[in-house]
Amino acid sequence: ALLDLLGEVHYADIAEIVDELDLPEATYLIKLLDSDKTSDVLTELDEDVRERILKNLSNEEIAGELLELDTDDAADIIAELPEERVQEVISNIEDKEHAKDIVELLRYDENSAGGLMAKELVKVNENWNVLTCVKEMRAQAENVTRVHSIYVVDDDDKLKGRLSLKDLLTTSTKTQVSEVYIPKVDYVNVHDKAEDVAKVMSKYDLEAIPVIDEMGRLVGRITIDDIVDVIKEEAEKDYQLAAGITQEVEADDNIWQLTRARLPWLVLGLLGGLGSVFIMEGFEEALNEYKELFFFTPLIAAMAGNVGVQSSAIIVQGLANDVVKGSLLNRLLKEVGLSLINGSALAILVIIFGFFIDDIGLRFSLTIAVSMMSVIIVAALIGTFVPIILDKRGIDPAIATGPFITTSNDIFGIFLFFYLAKLILGF
Amino acid sequence: ALLDLLGEVHYADIAEIVDELDLPEATYLIKLLDSDKTSDVLTELDEDVRERILKNLSNEEIAGELLELDTDDAADIIAELPEERVQEVISNIEDKEHAKDIVELLRYDENSAGGLMAKELVKVNENWNVLTCVKEMRAQAENVTRVHSIYVVDDDDKLKGRLSLKDLLTTSTKTQVSEVYIPKVDYVNVHDKAEDVAKVMSKYDLEAIPVIDEMGRLVGRITIDDIVDVIKEEAEKDYQLAAGITQEVEADDNIWQLTRARLPWLVLGLLGGLGSVFIMEGFEEALNEYKELFFFTPLIAAMAGNVGVQSSAIIVQGLANDVVKGSLLNRLLKEVGLSLINGSALAILVIIFGFFIDDIGLRFSLTIAVSMMSVIIVAALIGTFVPIILDKRGIDPAIATGPFITTSNDIFGIFLFFYLAKLILGF
Ligand SMILES: [Mg+2]
Ligand SMILES: [Mg+2]
Ligand SMILES: [Mg+2]
Ligand SMILES: [Mg+2]
Ligand SMILES: [Mg+2]
Ligand SMILES: [Mg+2]
Ligand SMILES: [Mg+2]
Ligand SMILES: [Mg+2]
Ligand SMILES: [Mg+2]
Ligand SMILES: [Mg+2]
Ligand SMILES: [Mg+2]
Ligand SMILES: [Mg+2]
Ligand SMILES: [Mg+2]
Repeated sequence: ALLDLLGEVHYADIAEIVDELDLPEATYLIKLLDSDKTSDVLTELDEDVRERILKNLSNEEIAGELLELDTDDAADIIAELPEERVQEVISNIEDKEHAKDIVELLRYDENSAGGLMAKELVKVNENWNVLTCVKEMRAQAENVTRVHSIYVVDDDDKLKGRLSLKDLLTTSTKTQVSEVYIPKVDYVNVHDKAEDVAKVMSKYDLEAIPVIDEMGRLVGRITIDDIVDVIKEEAEKDYQLAAGITQEVEADDNIWQLTRARLPWLVLGLLGGLGSVFIMEGFEEALNEYKELFFFTPLIAAMAGNVGVQSSAIIVQGLANDVVKGSLLNRLLKEVGLSLINGSALAILVIIFGFFIDDIGLRFSLTIAVSMMSVIIVAALIGTFVPIILDKRGIDPAIATGPFITTSNDIFGIFLFFYLAKLILGF
Repeated sequence: ALLDLLGEVHYADIAEIVDELDLPEATYLIKLLDSDKTSDVLTELDEDVRERILKNLSNEEIAGELLELDTDDAADIIAELPEERVQEVISNIEDKEHAKDIVELLRYDENSAGGLMAKELVKVNENWNVLTCVKEMRAQAENVTRVHSIYVVDDDDKLKGRLSLKDLLTTSTKTQVSEVYIPKVDYVNVHDKAEDVAKVMSKYDLEAIPVIDEMGRLVGRITIDDIVDVIKEEAEKDYQLAAGITQEVEADDNIWQLTRARLPWLVLGLLGGLGSVFIMEGFEEALNEYKELFFFTPLIAAMAGNVGVQSSAIIVQGLANDVVKGSLLNRLLKEVGLSLINGSALAILVIIFGFFIDDIGLRFSLTIAVSMMSVIIVAALIGTFVPIILDKRGIDPAIATGPFITTSNDIFGIFLFFYLAKLILGF
């Protein structure tokens, strides 16, 4: 009865249910479902849940599930298995062609086109005639959920172009493919980064894209559903990095996973804070005459942090979307201009505020205002150029937003603030 | 010659080139291209650039371009025109059916399924026989770039299911559609939020989804390429909000656009900083004996800010992905537990640090450590529950990450820190 009920439910929904069950129930349910559905459910499970369930399945059972899956999903699951099980599971896969394809896919980095592609696709040889095509395609299409495109290759398996289904159906059966195929086709290279594949597919609104190897041979095909996942994961990762969280944790992960993802960044922030303690000890003599300076440190730190995060976020997104063009000098002038405008508005507010506080004279307010403006300019420059420099060195600039920038800007900001105040007020 | 060159280039690439040109050049290029391509280029342009170019085109010219576009893209462009031009442009569209469809689409909120869908789709009546279907479909398919699915409706245009192309081709031409169609089909309602449509399509790996109105009638179809754009824009918006930037600005926007997007959040931060000044004035008497307390305020503010941003980011993502389940009490206990673990680790570092500073005794270090831990717990609770409360009230929780949380946590944190220090040290 339970089985009948679940028969109608989409595997992605079953996966959500299984994610919430405890292990014995989850394993029971997985073994209860027919293999066709189990395998799809497995691909949709939370990684931790899947790991635990796979521990409860034998090598033969896992091999049976993998047989039902497309090669890309099968390879992803195998890649998560403990090393000592991998070979055993693979040797239990009945279809040796399928097993061979999976082994090939295991070679590629998971964040590359090769790591995203599946071996399932429909291809025809340019030397075939239309009749042969239709026959061959029918056999190939059995393994392919959605055909999308028919790719044309030569005898060396090199990608030559694509064939429209319409042309195929309206052409005489004796015509050669080479006479009717479209030689223009978008493709990516097997070692291209996943992010770049996503850019190409979303820019050209593609639903599938063929993948070629170093010799131009057609080796696989990437479909848009997997690219949607790449885009979402990439966005979540960047969002978390900007918030000072690593390791792609989720709200429902356990306390230890959350601690591992969060504590390192907090320690960084703590060290920055302790740095500020040292800096202020160095300016201790200001306490005699200008103790209010010390009341302004959280304000300075907040401004330095906020401006830095804003600047870095805009640059990080700009780099991701390739809109950061033009010379560095122009960008520098723009950031300084922007900081002057924002800084002036904020400075005026500080000076107005000064009138409402008894102890603070105009000279002191002006000092705060000028120092704060300088801090804002420096913070904007750090926020802008740190990501650009990281990007130029091949480091993901996204790590530069968040705690990294706020911490360094806290320290630089507070030092600059006291330094300038000392210059102006002379203590 | 230029035209020949551009003939081979994809419209999305031409749009990128046009984005970089100045207005006269851009307009020249747009008028040079044949209308077929111009219209596609227009949809891909940066919004500001498009606005300026459309100003240089006559109502007739714009109507001519809209004729070439799918209804969803045409409606989006019209929605950007100044109100006084809308009617003029629409009345110049030659194909009255197309114009009517566009007008219908203009009714819907741009962030709803109706705002995303196009009228172009292939549908057949359940009472038709297969022969009629094929004939009608051939006509309909002329307007549809990619067919994806054949939807089945009844005489009232209500969505009944879908038809597989294979069944259509392998069934006798006299068979009725009602005998062969698949009654199970995913769909969304016309007023569903764009974000929810994206969730459904990405969860079920769909490339297109039909849209029904309040009466169950098939009114449109949404394709995955537009959902990819929704997902990317949504992610960018959340990222920017978390960084204290509104209005979806880009690195290449001008200084005034950037100022409008950034200054309000900086003012918020400034007011928070000024609030801290007031708080510290209230604890001024601590300067006599415990002046070092004031050196620790940037550290406290940094910890309160970082912890708050981490907690809120995890909750905001969890809410977006529907993984924030279970009771609020459990979540509260978890956050407190997590804060205690992180806080203890950080407290130990502070105490160790205390040994290396002459002026600071163990009692003082312990005071800092205890107060800091309390601040961390409170910051985590604020960071967790503010987004949850906003979400419950129907406000986008994403605004709670970033400056909003850092500012309130700065103030609460600094107050709590001094308050507890006063209790413990007694000044
Ligand atoms: Mg099973
Ligand atoms: Mg893979
Ligand atoms: Mg696109
Ligand atoms: Mg598009
Ligand atoms: Mg796949
Ligand atoms: Mg990235
Ligand atoms: Mg801060
Ligand atoms: Mg034109
Ligand atoms: Mg729209
Ligand atoms: Mg999916
Ligand atoms: Mg999938
Ligand atoms: Mg569209
Ligand atoms: Mg959102």
